[in-house]
Amino acid sequence: MRDIKRKGVTMNTIERWGMVEISAPGKTQGNPFTDYTCAATFTGKNETVVVDGFYDGGGTYKARFMPSFEGEYTYEISGTFGETRTGSFTAVSPTEGNHGPVRVAGQFHFCYEDASPYYPMGTTCYAWAHQPEAVRQQTLKELDQGYFNKMRFCVFPKHYIHNFRDPVTFPYEGTPVDNAGLSEENFSYQADFEGNHWDFTRFNPEHFRRIERCIVDLMDRGIEADIIVMHPYDRWGFSAMTPEQDDQYWKYVVARFAAYRNVWWSLANEYDLMVKKTLADWERYAKILCEKDPYRRLRSIHNCIHFYDHSRPWITHASLQRQDLYRHVEYTDEYRTRWGKPVVWDEIAYEGNIDMGWGNISGQELTRRFWEAALRGGYPGHGETFMDPEHDILWWSHGGPLHGESPARIRFLHEILQQTPGHGLRLAQGSFDETVAVPDGVHFLASPASGYEIHYYGFGRPSFRDFIKPEGQWQVEVVDTWEMTVTGAGVHTGKFRIPLPGKEYMALRLTRVE
Amino acid sequence: MRDIKRKGVTMNTIERWGMVEISAPGKTQGNPFTDYTCAATFTGKNETVVVDGFYDGGGTYKARFMPSFEGEYTYEISGTFGETRTGSFTAVSPTEGNHGPVRVAGQFHFCYEDASPYYPMGTTCYAWAHQPEAVRQQTLKELDQGYFNKMRFCVFPKHYIHNFRDPVTFPYEGTPVDNAGLSEENFSYQADFEGNHWDFTRFNPEHFRRIERCIVDLMDRGIEADIIVMHPYDRWGFSAMTPEQDDQYWKYVVARFAAYRNVWWSLANEYDLMVKKTLADWERYAKILCEKDPYRRLRSIHNCIHFYDHSRPWITHASLQRQDLYRHVEYTDEYRTRWGKPVVWDEIAYEGNIDMGWGNISGQELTRRFWEAALRGGYPGHGETFMDPEHDILWWSHGGPLHGESPARIRFLHEILQQTPGHGLRLAQGSFDETVAVPDGVHFLASPASGYEIHYYGFGRPSFRDFIKPEGQWQVEVVDTWEMTVTGAGVHTGKFRIPLPGKEYMALRLTRVE
Repeated sequence: MRDIKRKGVTMNTIERWGMVEISAPGKTQGNPFTDYTCAATFTGKNETVVVDGFYDGGGTYKARFMPSFEGEYTYEISGTFGETRTGSFTAVSPTEGNHGPVRVAGQFHFCYEDASPYYPMGTTCYAWAHQPEAVRQQTLKELDQGYFNKMRFCVFPKHYIHNFRDPVTFPYEGTPVDNAGLSEENFSYQADFEGNHWDFTRFNPEHFRRIERCIVDLMDRGIEADIIVMHPYDRWGFSAMTPEQDDQYWKYVVARFAAYRNVWWSLANEYDLMVKKTLADWERYAKILCEKDPYRRLRSIHNCIHFYDHSRPWITHASLQRQDLYRHVEYTDEYRTRWGKPVVWDEIAYEGNIDMGWGNISGQELTRRFWEAALRGGYPGHGETFMDPEHDILWWSHGGPLHGESPARIRFLHEILQQTPGHGLRLAQGSFDETVAVPDGVHFLASPASGYEIHYYGFGRPSFRDFIKPEGQWQVEVVDTWEMTVTGAGVHTGKFRIPLPGKEYMALRLTRVE
Repeated sequence: MRDIKRKGVTMNTIERWGMVEISAPGKTQGNPFTDYTCAATFTGKNETVVVDGFYDGGGTYKARFMPSFEGEYTYEISGTFGETRTGSFTAVSPTEGNHGPVRVAGQFHFCYEDASPYYPMGTTCYAWAHQPEAVRQQTLKELDQGYFNKMRFCVFPKHYIHNFRDPVTFPYEGTPVDNAGLSEENFSYQADFEGNHWDFTRFNPEHFRRIERCIVDLMDRGIEADIIVMHPYDRWGFSAMTPEQDDQYWKYVVARFAAYRNVWWSLANEYDLMVKKTLADWERYAKILCEKDPYRRLRSIHNCIHFYDHSRPWITHASLQRQDLYRHVEYTDEYRTRWGKPVVWDEIAYEGNIDMGWGNISGQELTRRFWEAALRGGYPGHGETFMDPEHDILWWSHGGPLHGESPARIRFLHEILQQTPGHGLRLAQGSFDETVAVPDGVHFLASPASGYEIHYYGFGRPSFRDFIKPEGQWQVEVVDTWEMTVTGAGVHTGKFRIPLPGKEYMALRLTRVE
């Protein structure tokens, strides 16, 4: 066995929620990806988990496991691939910063498995895993700033404007269509797949190892890896494989990635643009995922125009792209009610200056959307698309350096959310020209003494606001969401007036102190 | 007879669409407002118009008329009020700047009766007619700048925050409730009317003459007078009169004001807050208006929360207040389709910094709303609410000095609209991340060579935009809606790219030149 020796955990021990990897040599004749079986069983006091193994190239078969409990475990890896092997290890208490996988908390929020709250502040770098190492390191350097705690990215390479370079590796053995002469000028959303030569029965393990390095790099930074398993931006044919090829791909992905505690499954980005896939296909992939992932990692499917039916039982949370240019995150509370699940806004337009409307809003406007979504009890997502004529490196696709003003404000919002009593916020009833949030689970009108309220004024610019608090003493703080300051404004009771600077993006926080 | 001797028109002649006023002495015994009849008939080659006269105090009865045609007219004023009088006059060609009353043009737009287009760029100063003369002169000085061509204001005085001072005159004989001690602290939307002593059968003509001076001052500046006949902000009981009192008021208002060519009728501001009035009341007022106003002046009724049924036949255009904080003028095209009438956004939040969300948006945001509304073929309205602790003079209510940044941009938009081929714009089909307007009546998709397009990017910040124009040569202009500049960007055909500065509030105008 080869376990993960990270953060000072010694051989043959693994931290709870760490990743255990069993390696075994095996047959190489024929097609090792398809011709042999390989499975492993992990048994501890509190759980027995059976997982699929996978061929990792070079005559090596592997199986991976995440222990959900502390204590002794035994394992056995067996199948037609080669000789059965057994062994044991001890799962010990988690190291600092390891809170376990993220779960849905209550109905609309998230927490880690150790019950500490998790407030998603996601970003998107679709193709960062496919970039040269220098760019990947730039990305990690930005992520070190703690702006985000979730990252969406693709397994398959991406073909799209600003994305005509080939990836560093491809997921299958074979050769790609020539990318010479590709440009925005001749870009089409409906590529034909002539000129590719792939063996869809033989994966390229190095491609998947590169994805795994990304997953681990994110894990090390406390960032969830929201893996986009399929997507439509394709000139290679990965979006147009047969059902059998798709299923083989799904099983390989799950066998390789599922044991990483920070993995989330996004079945697709813009599933509704994948013209070769039917509703039955999506439901079949979901079935594979539910059967093969023993950890019940978070599952979603992201739209372009039309929402998937997020009431489907396998969907853990709604991963949304806005459907309107003007009103979107402001529907958060309605969508919560519609689906009874957490609402994660994974695309609400990006800070930038490209030609497309989805990629050229200001840092102020993106920050405003973050606040509107978060205060309504949903979770907003970041992206950045600034023109870079010299290198054509745009965060939304490649990662690389950040240029925008919103990331620091997003981190500030996260700090505010971390101060929430309980596990999340929700829109208070009775708001009219402000967005008023209270801790979720507290009924605002029935319980005016809920004790914690955030009043957000968005693009409004009030010079003051009046309050009536017949009961209790209330500490008031002025929150400048753009300047990222929290300023005390005294303790008040009864009818009182709080002065404000008459500018945009201000909030007030009221906390009952007695 | 006493005609209007303005702009050099001589005695016994009146310009077409001017106002003719007949005066006659009459009885003063009893109640001259109710005890006698008075009507006048005006006869020319092309029209015979019968109007109600009215008592103007001091033993004088009057009747007013607007000739819709040039040529000879005779008149007769008669009734139980006194002796019949007859006379004649000549209606001559209109003076410069007199284009006649505004009518609905086609389905969704407006033009003057001389067929020249009219693009409403309204503002609201609810109570400006009730202010001391010094404030009224400040208002007129601002209006001289040509920012607006429509003004909404009330006949009845207004009781509301920032509006606790008594009006200069009251509409009825009697005495008002004491206003001492009134403040925002004790303001209520539901005033009781104790302490007032009015004779609702006796008007105060001076109050109405003051309104008429305002109407004429607007007319002199080419500004339509959108008269709000009823409203709910009341501590005097004017919103809670009996049906008989209401009807007497409506007839008096129509008899006095209808002959001014720039009058529009707004039945109410926020009719749905007038708790004492029923749907039957509003329909009865509309019936009076339709019967008594021989000029068919524009008629609307303005909501707070709930739209009136703007499909009612007596309604000439939808006068709307936004129903949502975030998306509002962007519904313009939907509302046009819903009611098949012009859409006038008379309240879309005001530039300012008061505490309320309806009165604290930025000049940038209000200007953006103007462009979004106008390019969708609707007509937006301005208001301004900046705090003024010293004088408590806020444009939205009192008039006075303007402080905001939007008025100059509104005037600029009006200049752009005046360059529209035809009578107005409409949203082009196929827009996604831009608001694209074409001349109304031209089908965009069926006729790509419509020859005139405005592409507006709102809060988007594109660094460039690409176009495909297979046919024709297109002159492109970059319009900075905030800096109020129009800059040539060459003549293009086929596939071409236009650079933009990557900032908000930009538009492109494409005009086919061959």
